[in-house]
Amino acid sequence: MNNNVFLKTKKEAPKDETAINAKLLIKGGFIEKLASGIYLFLPLGWRVHQKIERIIREEMNRLGAREIFLSALQPVSLWKKERIDSMKDILYRLYDSSKREFLLGPTHEEIISMVGKVFIKSFRDLPFSLYQIQTKFRDEPRAKSGLLRTREFIMKDLYSFHSDKDDMEKFYQKVKNSYLRIFKRCGLKVLVCEASGGAFSKEYSHEFMVRTEAGEDKVIFCKNCNFAQNFEISSLKENQVCPKCKKEKLKMVKTIEVGNIFKLGTKFSEMFDIKFIDRDQKEKFVWMACYGIGVGRLMGAVVEVSCDKQGIIWPKEIAPFLVHLITLKSGERKIDKRIEEFSKKSYQTFLKEKIEVLLDQRDISPGEKFFDYELIGCPFRIVISKKTVQKNKVEIRKRKEKEPKLVSLSEAIRILKS
Amino acid sequence: MNNNVFLKTKKEAPKDETAINAKLLIKGGFIEKLASGIYLFLPLGWRVHQKIERIIREEMNRLGAREIFLSALQPVSLWKKERIDSMKDILYRLYDSSKREFLLGPTHEEIISMVGKVFIKSFRDLPFSLYQIQTKFRDEPRAKSGLLRTREFIMKDLYSFHSDKDDMEKFYQKVKNSYLRIFKRCGLKVLVCEASGGAFSKEYSHEFMVRTEAGEDKVIFCKNCNFAQNFEISSLKENQVCPKCKKEKLKMVKTIEVGNIFKLGTKFSEMFDIKFIDRDQKEKFVWMACYGIGVGRLMGAVVEVSCDKQGIIWPKEIAPFLVHLITLKSGERKIDKRIEEFSKKSYQTFLKEKIEVLLDQRDISPGEKFFDYELIGCPFRIVISKKTVQKNKVEIRKRKEKEPKLVSLSEAIRILKS
Repeated sequence: MNNNVFLKTKKEAPKDETAINAKLLIKGGFIEKLASGIYLFLPLGWRVHQKIERIIREEMNRLGAREIFLSALQPVSLWKKERIDSMKDILYRLYDSSKREFLLGPTHEEIISMVGKVFIKSFRDLPFSLYQIQTKFRDEPRAKSGLLRTREFIMKDLYSFHSDKDDMEKFYQKVKNSYLRIFKRCGLKVLVCEASGGAFSKEYSHEFMVRTEAGEDKVIFCKNCNFAQNFEISSLKENQVCPKCKKEKLKMVKTIEVGNIFKLGTKFSEMFDIKFIDRDQKEKFVWMACYGIGVGRLMGAVVEVSCDKQGIIWPKEIAPFLVHLITLKSGERKIDKRIEEFSKKSYQTFLKEKIEVLLDQRDISPGEKFFDYELIGCPFRIVISKKTVQKNKVEIRKRKEKEPKLVSLSEAIRILKS
Repeated sequence: MNNNVFLKTKKEAPKDETAINAKLLIKGGFIEKLASGIYLFLPLGWRVHQKIERIIREEMNRLGAREIFLSALQPVSLWKKERIDSMKDILYRLYDSSKREFLLGPTHEEIISMVGKVFIKSFRDLPFSLYQIQTKFRDEPRAKSGLLRTREFIMKDLYSFHSDKDDMEKFYQKVKNSYLRIFKRCGLKVLVCEASGGAFSKEYSHEFMVRTEAGEDKVIFCKNCNFAQNFEISSLKENQVCPKCKKEKLKMVKTIEVGNIFKLGTKFSEMFDIKFIDRDQKEKFVWMACYGIGVGRLMGAVVEVSCDKQGIIWPKEIAPFLVHLITLKSGERKIDKRIEEFSKKSYQTFLKEKIEVLLDQRDISPGEKFFDYELIGCPFRIVISKKTVQKNKVEIRKRKEKEPKLVSLSEAIRILKS
């Protein structure tokens, strides 16, 4: 084994990719493009994806939401109620061998409504919330921003069911806080932005926006009080005084939407006739809300805002590995044996300490290995070489700092765990 | 909270389901049918699915295989090489808005071949193996066996790449052993059955078969030496003497295929021109093999062979919960308070001990709760009632045994952990 993760970097980014996230992720061997808007996740990229998924799962479970898994194939008949028209431009539709028409789910409001309809009978069945981390399909016309806008992607979608508006509002606030924790753990600063209820509701929905020039969305934003409104729905203009704090002029900034939350109200329960018998024995419509995070898009957004000319700078909790361990040969047989032994011992020690290590023992030049380390962007680099083994030490460096330090293995572990 | 897992059992199984697995899983609130061959996984069912996934991941990682995630959408152009004809009856095909034709992957040999082609250059790049746990689509004409034959399902597919036949053979044997561990951990006894190379190879492939009358496959089988051959390709007949041990007459048995492994040889590398420069500087074709397990089908097979008239009997490692904790009220206020406190304390203690507990505090009759316990089929039932709290004990019973025991909480924990 010369590396432990299918380490496959490229010298050049593909010419047809213009987005920074696509260039760096493909060069670094995280993803590979199959067709416009369709990417394959290689082991490095999938590790990052799974770490984001894990954070999301932890936060969803903390809300008391339960995980489910709905199908991608959805009968078109269910969609005839409404969204078949409003979403028609991005729907993939197909027929099975019995000539029944299906579509590939761009989201799952219709299907979860069916689940609600089957299982909700009384107020005792409410409230509850269900989420999935599952593949969505959207035939995007502008799929040219790497992971920011793809035709097939994994989304976390959460749906909540309530007996009245008040209960829905309370849970909506909880989810908003949960989303802020998720993005923070992923190393992202987000604006909470008022947006259109869209196909769903007349009230504001909320979008979680990451500021970057790579963004396709525009937001009117107050840097004093963090008031933010999606430009598409805003009646406000740039340089106007903030209507909330009245202290600062509004700016227009470009953003990437990494999450959104919608109050569905009784829209879907009226459409699908989802009712329950309340404590007062009256039949009422169920209140619903839905909440989405595009996992791949979140990953792409992190790369856009956390990189330098050399490559990616992964936030600690979603880095593919905490440490990139580079072993350099000296050319002197006896010393190389010591380097090998010391590397093996260090690697085993890290594993025992539950520190995740990318082990790079490939037979290439030190320069190439250092180049790949910067490109891949793990939080720490550790080098074991002639210089370090002669002092019985390792060289440790943070991705964001330029000065390496010579430290003992136990000191390195202390630094990595702090 | 009256239960902690969206506990939604049904009194009756749906009339249109004939398979035992579908009846029990739908009645128990594990899955819900959306359309023919398309099922939704509810929280209880998804827990079981995820536990099987976890076992598979552990065993794949132990092999040194790395996890990836490939797209469901595949350009039909890649398939024009061959399988577009041999698999045409079960392919879902569709066009995007630019009139490009795609299909929904029934497996991923074509796509993984593209990955191999991009990244394999020299013998130094070999061997490696990649796997995914990802959704497959097959337009099955006979989708009427619950989870045993569905149109959309999650499959673990592993692909290995080698520099020569010998290396491929060695890895193939390793995977065979890995599969046997996976099925054993899932509580399944399997026959390793010789089968056709099918679309892939002239050599035997191997199928992992579970014996049950619900199976759609037929196998010629020797109960003395475990020789097994798929009836479809076998030249052997029932009651003939076993050609291997020569000691026993062959029987024909019905089975469910839960996994299969194929030596692809150089078939796909020749088709896609996947070559590498070997140590001898010569250009050679890469050797490949592929290995599949249908996760949902495995789950369905477990239900078929591990149930009784009352419901499912989950093997320990894939049970949705280890313990089903039932709290019964007495109707006497003071005692009910003690029952509630004791239940709370027990539940917290279980969580602290990392014992997974389904908590059933629903306001229904004891009979209904016991009925649901048998249907859902967790390995242990614990009851807390007036009778038990008066002795400061809990009542514990195994799903397969009929006699409950009154024990202290700490003794219960000892039993659950043994």
